[in-house]
Amino acid sequence: MDFSYSEKTKDYLARLDTFMVEFIEPYENQYQKENYRLNSTSNWREWQVPPRVAELKQMAREQGLWNLFLPDDTLGAGLSTLEYAPLAERMGRSLLAPEIFNCNAPDTGNMEVLHYFGDKAQQKRWLQPLLDGEVRSVFCMTEPDVASSDATNMQTTIVAEGDEWVINGRKWWSTGLGHPDAEIAIVMGLTDEDADKHHQHSMVLVPLDTPGVNIERMLPALGEYDAPYGHGEVIFDNVRVPKENIIVGPGAGFKIAQGRLGPGRIHHCMRAIGAAERALELFIERGVSRIAFGQPLLKLGGNTERLADMRVAIDQARLMTLYAAWQIDNIGALKAIKEISAIKLVAPSVLQHVVDETMQLFGGASMCHDTPLPGLLTVARSLRIADGPDAVHRATIAKTELKQWQGRNNDR
Amino acid sequence: MDFSYSEKTKDYLARLDTFMVEFIEPYENQYQKENYRLNSTSNWREWQVPPRVAELKQMAREQGLWNLFLPDDTLGAGLSTLEYAPLAERMGRSLLAPEIFNCNAPDTGNMEVLHYFGDKAQQKRWLQPLLDGEVRSVFCMTEPDVASSDATNMQTTIVAEGDEWVINGRKWWSTGLGHPDAEIAIVMGLTDEDADKHHQHSMVLVPLDTPGVNIERMLPALGEYDAPYGHGEVIFDNVRVPKENIIVGPGAGFKIAQGRLGPGRIHHCMRAIGAAERALELFIERGVSRIAFGQPLLKLGGNTERLADMRVAIDQARLMTLYAAWQIDNIGALKAIKEISAIKLVAPSVLQHVVDETMQLFGGASMCHDTPLPGLLTVARSLRIADGPDAVHRATIAKTELKQWQGRNNDR
Amino acid sequence: MDFSYSEKTKDYLARLDTFMVEFIEPYENQYQKENYRLNSTSNWREWQVPPRVAELKQMAREQGLWNLFLPDDTLGAGLSTLEYAPLAERMGRSLLAPEIFNCNAPDTGNMEVLHYFGDKAQQKRWLQPLLDGEVRSVFCMTEPDVASSDATNMQTTIVAEGDEWVINGRKWWSTGLGHPDAEIAIVMGLTDEDADKHHQHSMVLVPLDTPGVNIERMLPALGEYDAPYGHGEVIFDNVRVPKENIIVGPGAGFKIAQGRLGPGRIHHCMRAIGAAERALELFIERGVSRIAFGQPLLKLGGNTERLADMRVAIDQARLMTLYAAWQIDNIGALKAIKEISAIKLVAPSVLQHVVDETMQLFGGASMCHDTPLPGLLTVARSLRIADGPDAVHRATIAKTELKQWQGRNNDR
Amino acid sequence: MDFSYSEKTKDYLARLDTFMVEFIEPYENQYQKENYRLNSTSNWREWQVPPRVAELKQMAREQGLWNLFLPDDTLGAGLSTLEYAPLAERMGRSLLAPEIFNCNAPDTGNMEVLHYFGDKAQQKRWLQPLLDGEVRSVFCMTEPDVASSDATNMQTTIVAEGDEWVINGRKWWSTGLGHPDAEIAIVMGLTDEDADKHHQHSMVLVPLDTPGVNIERMLPALGEYDAPYGHGEVIFDNVRVPKENIIVGPGAGFKIAQGRLGPGRIHHCMRAIGAAERALELFIERGVSRIAFGQPLLKLGGNTERLADMRVAIDQARLMTLYAAWQIDNIGALKAIKEISAIKLVAPSVLQHVVDETMQLFGGASMCHDTPLPGLLTVARSLRIADGPDAVHRATIAKTELKQWQGRNNDR
Repeated sequence: MDFSYSEKTKDYLARLDTFMVEFIEPYENQYQKENYRLNSTSNWREWQVPPRVAELKQMAREQGLWNLFLPDDTLGAGLSTLEYAPLAERMGRSLLAPEIFNCNAPDTGNMEVLHYFGDKAQQKRWLQPLLDGEVRSVFCMTEPDVASSDATNMQTTIVAEGDEWVINGRKWWSTGLGHPDAEIAIVMGLTDEDADKHHQHSMVLVPLDTPGVNIERMLPALGEYDAPYGHGEVIFDNVRVPKENIIVGPGAGFKIAQGRLGPGRIHHCMRAIGAAERALELFIERGVSRIAFGQPLLKLGGNTERLADMRVAIDQARLMTLYAAWQIDNIGALKAIKEISAIKLVAPSVLQHVVDETMQLFGGASMCHDTPLPGLLTVARSLRIADGPDAVHRATIAKTELKQWQGRNNDR
Repeated sequence: MDFSYSEKTKDYLARLDTFMVEFIEPYENQYQKENYRLNSTSNWREWQVPPRVAELKQMAREQGLWNLFLPDDTLGAGLSTLEYAPLAERMGRSLLAPEIFNCNAPDTGNMEVLHYFGDKAQQKRWLQPLLDGEVRSVFCMTEPDVASSDATNMQTTIVAEGDEWVINGRKWWSTGLGHPDAEIAIVMGLTDEDADKHHQHSMVLVPLDTPGVNIERMLPALGEYDAPYGHGEVIFDNVRVPKENIIVGPGAGFKIAQGRLGPGRIHHCMRAIGAAERALELFIERGVSRIAFGQPLLKLGGNTERLADMRVAIDQARLMTLYAAWQIDNIGALKAIKEISAIKLVAPSVLQHVVDETMQLFGGASMCHDTPLPGLLTVARSLRIADGPDAVHRATIAKTELKQWQGRNNDR
Repeated sequence: MDFSYSEKTKDYLARLDTFMVEFIEPYENQYQKENYRLNSTSNWREWQVPPRVAELKQMAREQGLWNLFLPDDTLGAGLSTLEYAPLAERMGRSLLAPEIFNCNAPDTGNMEVLHYFGDKAQQKRWLQPLLDGEVRSVFCMTEPDVASSDATNMQTTIVAEGDEWVINGRKWWSTGLGHPDAEIAIVMGLTDEDADKHHQHSMVLVPLDTPGVNIERMLPALGEYDAPYGHGEVIFDNVRVPKENIIVGPGAGFKIAQGRLGPGRIHHCMRAIGAAERALELFIERGVSRIAFGQPLLKLGGNTERLADMRVAIDQARLMTLYAAWQIDNIGALKAIKEISAIKLVAPSVLQHVVDETMQLFGGASMCHDTPLPGLLTVARSLRIADGPDAVHRATIAKTELKQWQGRNNDR
Repeated sequence: MDFSYSEKTKDYLARLDTFMVEFIEPYENQYQKENYRLNSTSNWREWQVPPRVAELKQMAREQGLWNLFLPDDTLGAGLSTLEYAPLAERMGRSLLAPEIFNCNAPDTGNMEVLHYFGDKAQQKRWLQPLLDGEVRSVFCMTEPDVASSDATNMQTTIVAEGDEWVINGRKWWSTGLGHPDAEIAIVMGLTDEDADKHHQHSMVLVPLDTPGVNIERMLPALGEYDAPYGHGEVIFDNVRVPKENIIVGPGAGFKIAQGRLGPGRIHHCMRAIGAAERALELFIERGVSRIAFGQPLLKLGGNTERLADMRVAIDQARLMTLYAAWQIDNIGALKAIKEISAIKLVAPSVLQHVVDETMQLFGGASMCHDTPLPGLLTVARSLRIADGPDAVHRATIAKTELKQWQGRNNDR
């Protein structure tokens, strides 16, 4: 259980920090405005990426701050989950940073799928452009008409017909679907209802320009379309892709989903810790500088106690995340299920709480784009649903705890 | 302490209920879409009111479901605070309803100001059109650069020059400023810095077409512009209005603000209770109908306990609101300060909590306009700031409690 | 929903207040010591009642402050549940007071059973001496070996044999069993396992000197034996009582239990509110008088916010209690089940929370008899179990809420 | 930040586990009864240690499971704070175990004081018998009349007269003072009011049989005297000890107190984690075995969610404790002040919460000695005061956080 930062991590962290302080932080406000100017249209087909983003990505790539998330040491940075964790936390302080370093969801998860499960042809066709940051991808899993927290509810079908797979169904909350560079979707659906429940589903690669891929709308998350990415609702209407577009093979969907959520499954949590640190800094900055009733806000009421409680909550969440990362690296994601669920339960809740308290200190400014707080709130609020609802994580933790308790009892 | 519903209340409540069930509820989804179609533009100057809203207002007025908030029995419905409370709760179940019944903030508060403090000419010119629902008004109090929770921080100045008041300053979060019918602002500012702190401020009536009234932008609240109302940031740049536009007179601002927040000060709380009931119903509806892991969501994990806790929290908040209303009616708002602060602390928090839990059951649908949940969240989150921050209410309660404790001790 | 205090209540409250301030409060510390001196023995058979208690009871009776809990206007004070509530709250401020006014559990509940369900002979033999405060009684329901939250688990049997009932079983937490004046127990047990679940149980009157009534031990509640009352564990070993000792008749146990818990079911809650007020006063007294780091404790950290939150929590709990009381009086305890469960959930929790926070201000003094805090903690902690566990109340509230929601849906 | 268990720790842990499972756990119930039989008298002068305790201590010593807490590798086991942490956690599962392994408070802290600060003569006279487990010691710091959370309030005086120190004052909550083997007290008091606030206090060694050491009473903690240890209130009435009984020298009291609380300052937290694990196991055991409404309690209401939340809270607290331990070992206790305060805030609160929830599942049995729950509650509740009140820890964390934030800001 060694959580010390490796030399590699320390080196990357220092460089990441420098890059963010020099280039990303000063640009953030401008990005907010530029993005608003370019993308305030409700017509997502006209969304554009601010040109400075492409420049920054190029700079990051040239500095080797690129694809740090991928454990592979040729294609990525060769970092273990634990080594990557502090870097993801650092990036998480900015809503823009993960994109700049090509470490953005859902591309990271999709690249992991293609890296671990894709065949050579699939990797050449899709993994490489994603690693190069030239295209963007989406992951189509959640459906509007069923409780997606229970994957066995899925209704989209993927049926073999001749040399093709025919896909029918409706997906939503496919993040990145509105992006001008979005080209490829990984779509999960039912291939064999009669198989056992871990072999009913498959994943296929569906280019977004395939006929029958009908994007219905972008969905606002707490009022924000998150342009130029967007969260889309899409109908697959007799969409046909070649047989070779299946990943691994029929019935492998569940296995890949588990794998996809391997190391990558706690990236969100790491970033959430960073976001919470950012929010806590805003709490302090506002608390010491804003005056009411003759005193800085921090001296009023219970604000110092709030500060202490939030600091302790964040520190505990970080340690828990590092612990889960260490377990993923050392005993594997499947055996670390309890710790992974724990941190998925804790990290977004801590973030939501810190943001909520910080909003109270900022008053009106907390509700609009003058602060990053609405964006951070949306991240927290969405994660508590998108990364599995709290209740499902609690159920997993309790189930695993009971099993382990039973095991200990049997040993005696 | 009699919280029974009066005959008048029962009658109005039945009619309100019928109107809402027959006309407003069926229109709500359509309103959402129509409003989005008309007002998705970021240019607030083009915002329009969906025509059906005007029709419904006309119908409500014809049925006598109009200006129920105003205690005056000629101009309003002659209801006490306690009598109006259940009606406000009923309206609060819908984000659209208060407008239909001409019981919408900030017009209600502004009408109260004009009714209780305006002179004949001011009432004729502005109160009557507001009571008729023909124009809309805004209230300019909060400023971006100072902690508005402490009113003594206010920087906007109102200076006498000849026959005029000259106004300079910046206000924001002026709700309704973007509305096509918005014509008049009540602006609060400093008239005499040297007076004691309860006589430094004044309120003046400023027609929005006065030269120097420069609306800079509409502010999104958690991503939503709340068109066609909007929350505006406005600069008063050497704005000149005639002397007679002052309300009551120089130095009366604090007194009016206290009065403005008289009965009207708990309207928000009443509506929040109604909104929480609406959210709880959504929790139940989703909980019994959505299936995961072979069971309705409500049967999973701690959901029935959540339901119980939320029911109890709402019921307690309602009783507290009725108690505060009863006190306002019987001992006056000033003496009811502890109870008013209590309910302002409790009601929005309960709403925020119920909405948060309900979002967990709705998953993705909770984040977008497919449910009223983002709107309800914004109401709750804003109220915890706009209606005075939680911390200020807590400070008021503690201060009053200590004073009362001291009083009891002295008696012995 | 009129919670105003009636003239009768106001009169009793004033007299109660005077009596408590003049006689009970000054005696409390001395009682603590005297009781400790007399009853520190672990041998409960030697426990004695401090003589001053009998004097105070006599005085209270002479002043007509006696049996106020009983709605009957000949035997009691003729007060409704709502009228009695503020008096019970007042008594609840002292752990000694309920005994002095003959309003102590479990005698109150037992007197209600005898009053509403006992026959003439039973009333003459047992109700009258209880009303006179000459004997004390116990209620034997909870059993150690089964979850008593689910009454259908009960294992004690009451079997007819000739002219007698023969009782076998084990009961515990029978409060008052160690009292020198304890003479009679109401024992609940199984008479007919094959009946429907609401007619399996019966209640019989068992004089404590009946052969086979074997008191095994007194149970300490968080370390305190609560001498001279005690909480006993008792074995009924072939205990025989005459047939006429059954209350109402075989199978009536469930009905009586429901009835027993009629108005009396919220007496504990009312007293808990009073106890919470007492604890809050201690919080303030300590907060303003104890100095640390150069300031009164109340000015440090979040203590004023805690004060505000506790004040609001207590006020809400009181309103909820009054509402439940009003409902019991107006629609009956059965229909008020949701509100009764709500207040049983809320009141002890609020008390426990206020006591916990107050203990923090008192430091070491909070842990021992130098303050009433350990006693108040034990009251709160016990109530959350003894008056039905929180979880059962939550289940009842949720079940009722769902039923009512279904009812509303069917109406539309 | 390597929290892995060292080989030494693993070896000790295995042996500790075996010893506890084989000898301590089977004896615990019997100990409870034997202790009650021997020590139920309120006269603490008659308290005795059950003979089996001495036997077990002897066995533990022979097995080398002795003084594990002391980092010194000759006198103790040579374990770092981090290495000892899992052993302290293991011991913390039993209220009896720390005594058996000579790792009991306050002896551990006192031995640390004597080891690090005592001179040769003091070590020979007092440290050796303590290390041998032959005598017991007390630590006299807290005073009844002032807020001891602020050490500058201390009123006890230690005045030089000739060859002696003369001690006058009143101390309370001196744990172990009632023990038949208690022989020595470390007493902290004022030697020089005029010195700066970190050099006003001194510590002297006071044999308990010195004339003028008047033990007034033992204080029950939540009703329990914790015989044969006890928590005493003691008056020092012109108590005279030789000059050489001062530790280090006049004015060193503050420095020693800081040192005393060095590694030892988180022993309580470690044990609290173990106690929480014990309570959680009881929660599970009861939850799966007790039936109500046809189901094991664990399947009812929100109990599985509670289990998950408690598991996560304990795991986070353990990681935080290990982190604080690691910091103490690597950067020293002074620099680890934020983390030490954090875990002192968190660990007892987590324990109190887990015990509270477990009590709900146990019902009546949770309130008396039939379960270890009242004892565990008392541990948790006392720690939140005795080990520094929560509020003081929060203040320390906030202060340190602000200083660190300021430091980071200055760096940029």
